[in-house]
Amino acid sequence: MAGPFTVAEIARHVGGTVEGDGDRRLSDVRGLDEAGPDHLSFLANRRYARRMRATRAGAVLVGRDEPARGRTVIRCDDPYVAFARALALFHPRPWPAPGVDPRAFVAEDAVVDGATVEAFAWVGPGAVVGPETWVQAGAVIGAGARVGRRCRLMPHSVVAEGCALGDRVWLNPGAVVGAEGFGFAPTPGGWVKIPQVGRAVVGDDVEIGANSCVDRAAMGETRVEEGARLDNLVQVGHAARVGPHSLMVAFSGVAGSARLGAGVRLAAKAAVLGHIELGDGVQVGTASVVHDGQPPGARVTGVPAIEHRRWLRAAASFGELPELRRTVRALERRVAELEARLAARDDEEEP
Amino acid sequence: MAGPFTVAEIARHVGGTVEGDGDRRLSDVRGLDEAGPDHLSFLANRRYARRMRATRAGAVLVGRDEPARGRTVIRCDDPYVAFARALALFHPRPWPAPGVDPRAFVAEDAVVDGATVEAFAWVGPGAVVGPETWVQAGAVIGAGARVGRRCRLMPHSVVAEGCALGDRVWLNPGAVVGAEGFGFAPTPGGWVKIPQVGRAVVGDDVEIGANSCVDRAAMGETRVEEGARLDNLVQVGHAARVGPHSLMVAFSGVAGSARLGAGVRLAAKAAVLGHIELGDGVQVGTASVVHDGQPPGARVTGVPAIEHRRWLRAAASFGELPELRRTVRALERRVAELEARLAARDDEEEP
Amino acid sequence: MAGPFTVAEIARHVGGTVEGDGDRRLSDVRGLDEAGPDHLSFLANRRYARRMRATRAGAVLVGRDEPARGRTVIRCDDPYVAFARALALFHPRPWPAPGVDPRAFVAEDAVVDGATVEAFAWVGPGAVVGPETWVQAGAVIGAGARVGRRCRLMPHSVVAEGCALGDRVWLNPGAVVGAEGFGFAPTPGGWVKIPQVGRAVVGDDVEIGANSCVDRAAMGETRVEEGARLDNLVQVGHAARVGPHSLMVAFSGVAGSARLGAGVRLAAKAAVLGHIELGDGVQVGTASVVHDGQPPGARVTGVPAIEHRRWLRAAASFGELPELRRTVRALERRVAELEARLAARDDEEEP
Repeated sequence: MAGPFTVAEIARHVGGTVEGDGDRRLSDVRGLDEAGPDHLSFLANRRYARRMRATRAGAVLVGRDEPARGRTVIRCDDPYVAFARALALFHPRPWPAPGVDPRAFVAEDAVVDGATVEAFAWVGPGAVVGPETWVQAGAVIGAGARVGRRCRLMPHSVVAEGCALGDRVWLNPGAVVGAEGFGFAPTPGGWVKIPQVGRAVVGDDVEIGANSCVDRAAMGETRVEEGARLDNLVQVGHAARVGPHSLMVAFSGVAGSARLGAGVRLAAKAAVLGHIELGDGVQVGTASVVHDGQPPGARVTGVPAIEHRRWLRAAASFGELPELRRTVRALERRVAELEARLAARDDEEEP
Repeated sequence: MAGPFTVAEIARHVGGTVEGDGDRRLSDVRGLDEAGPDHLSFLANRRYARRMRATRAGAVLVGRDEPARGRTVIRCDDPYVAFARALALFHPRPWPAPGVDPRAFVAEDAVVDGATVEAFAWVGPGAVVGPETWVQAGAVIGAGARVGRRCRLMPHSVVAEGCALGDRVWLNPGAVVGAEGFGFAPTPGGWVKIPQVGRAVVGDDVEIGANSCVDRAAMGETRVEEGARLDNLVQVGHAARVGPHSLMVAFSGVAGSARLGAGVRLAAKAAVLGHIELGDGVQVGTASVVHDGQPPGARVTGVPAIEHRRWLRAAASFGELPELRRTVRALERRVAELEARLAARDDEEEP
Repeated sequence: MAGPFTVAEIARHVGGTVEGDGDRRLSDVRGLDEAGPDHLSFLANRRYARRMRATRAGAVLVGRDEPARGRTVIRCDDPYVAFARALALFHPRPWPAPGVDPRAFVAEDAVVDGATVEAFAWVGPGAVVGPETWVQAGAVIGAGARVGRRCRLMPHSVVAEGCALGDRVWLNPGAVVGAEGFGFAPTPGGWVKIPQVGRAVVGDDVEIGANSCVDRAAMGETRVEEGARLDNLVQVGHAARVGPHSLMVAFSGVAGSARLGAGVRLAAKAAVLGHIELGDGVQVGTASVVHDGQPPGARVTGVPAIEHRRWLRAAASFGELPELRRTVRALERRVAELEARLAARDDEEEP
């Protein structure tokens, strides 16, 4: 914890302008409902504007056009980004000084100049670890792997042999980059393994969640491009490509050789099947399975995934299927009766 | 393995009463189909009552009102709980004596009195580990984390910095408490990370499965309350709350800031979206996605989740959608024909 | 990397016959689209026959009946298997010499003759590890566990106490064999744990993906039979049985006591509920949930899973549910009007 800070100091830090009491001292950040007089809060979504009236916060980060409602506010272009910066101001997270713990294993020909390597971390032969990178307890960097500058490899994360991370990559505990891709040739005697001799490459500023997996390719590379963010328990198959600044929420997965454009978003439990291509900005809804390629900007949901609004309407009808069926059966009876009556009349009328 | 034990000894241990031969000696526990004359078995579900007739078991744990069918039985209030106790009687699991392996890392100012810390376990600065707690090979307890009494942290489980476990918490291998929550602010230049400076707190008597994840909060706490049981590969998002004695089966997940009451049950692959509330005792079916808050006791299934029986009926109709569609098209033709015939008659009849 | 090799040498290695220039020297393997004149390529799926015309590959592995189209080809019975062998020829993966790193922990009474044990690996009391087996950094073999010959236990994989692996088993990073099964008896005071005192047994030639879990049984054994292949993030519940040469793709799971026959295939995110049986060769589609037992050779998809082609047709109709509903409502109005008109006529005609 750092602080307290004055409203003016905070405004300077987040790039905002004060309206109200710039000298008020604040000690931490809270949501609008939880904040007290010595807290900073934020209004990032106008849906919550009503909470702004009731908040007891000492100051609130707001957008440029938001009414101040008689409060001390810090106006910013993006109050959510300002909130992120303010949190970092009050809660600076320590980054360790460089140094290799004597209980770590670092191969003789590995390069770890300027990095921090904790006890029980393992850096294999020929590996290169950039300066300021923090290799936490039990993290493993395989033979010949390359890790950039100021990465954080949390406990038990793994960069397998020959794989590569860019700069400022953050691996959460148990994240695995470069496990074997899943490729087997069927034969009468069982499965024959396709050797997975390619690698996995992760770009700059990527974060990978706890126990998530990015497989190595059979040939060539699996790629997670710069700025992509992967939640926990996410799977990226071999030779797939996750485009820059894409988002993969928990339990989402991309099968082998699929290619995602820039800024693609996979909601929780979404799956993209193999060998297809999603254009830039495609959004896939929760628990969906995408069978076919999608043009840029498409928004799809369902199993298989269809256009999102169409899915919403269909899903809303799903629960009424039994009634619909009953209605159709009743209609069949009624139509048959009508047909019979008309036929009877025809008979009557025929001389 | 312990034993053999007499039927009377077992009855005393599980709190039941013998009907039949209390002196018979039994050597282990088996299911009704697999049991032989020197095995104890159990009838916990009356669905399996038929198997009771054919079993060769030396004695059977049964409920208070179950017919003995000429066998030696041990009557108990809850035969399934009695089975659990009997298994523990025959298979006592060793718990190690306290002591810190010299190959472990324990920070100078960490407190581990009375705990067992195995080789390659890592206990960070300022961490506190309660007596009788067993920190297995490669488990990591971050700086400032607190772990209660008689917990078991299996290999490679992680309690990240500043997080807390209550007493008798059991983390399976690879379970992670306190990884980064998944929060990013979108900007034209990419995602800006929301610092996750809150923590994750796990109550007493919680079990967390292998490779499951409970994220830390951005602010405040993620909570898994006492007695909750999480299976393998489960995800609890940042600032979520899993109520006491809740059950989360494999691949189920709770998104950020969702709040589950007491005794909630999520079946396998069930997902609860963010910022919603499930009342006490809510049950969510397999592979469901809950979009909206649910009152206490609700039972919901589907994507999005609807009332369970309604979903069952709708799901049963789903496979017949193509026939339904064909029937409706045929009805359209038949109705159009009827309309045409009636119109023709009207024409005829008009002078 | 090994090589270059002549086409004739490659043909001998993969068991094929040359048609064309056997003396041409090749340096690596590539897909048809990426290959250049010094690359070997392959045509394993006739869907891609068109790419064969455009490829610049120096030689192509093809089936016995494939037209050569004027190229140098190596004819083989199974070009995909030949591709696997060729990849291994060009990319031999090193296997380390036996030896125990002094920074590993090996219990005094454990047997590790002829195995490789890296730093921070942990081999418990009474464990037996077969010759040529490679226990990588941080892998854990619990007390009394048995691991066969020439297995590879990648970093942080775990074989829990008393469990067993056959020969040539490959555990990817974070894979866990023998975590606690998920069994609890409900009581008014909360869940009572069913002790999980059985074990997990993995047969010969099984591969288990990163962060996948095979739980131990409460009693008896969980079994993954020989030649089965499990992708990343897969779950096998307690006392389940995965049949020989079965395939489980990422996020698929088998619940407790379910039994899968030989050669069963679970696509990504497929789930098999507990206590049911799938016959040999059953195929389960992506994101499906199998509620009921299935006969050999069945192919099922959906939630709950139904016959695959039926599901395909139903799923194709799903998006049109709203239109179908509108049509049915319109039909109801039209039929009511017809009925009214006929009734009016009856009235008219009655004297």
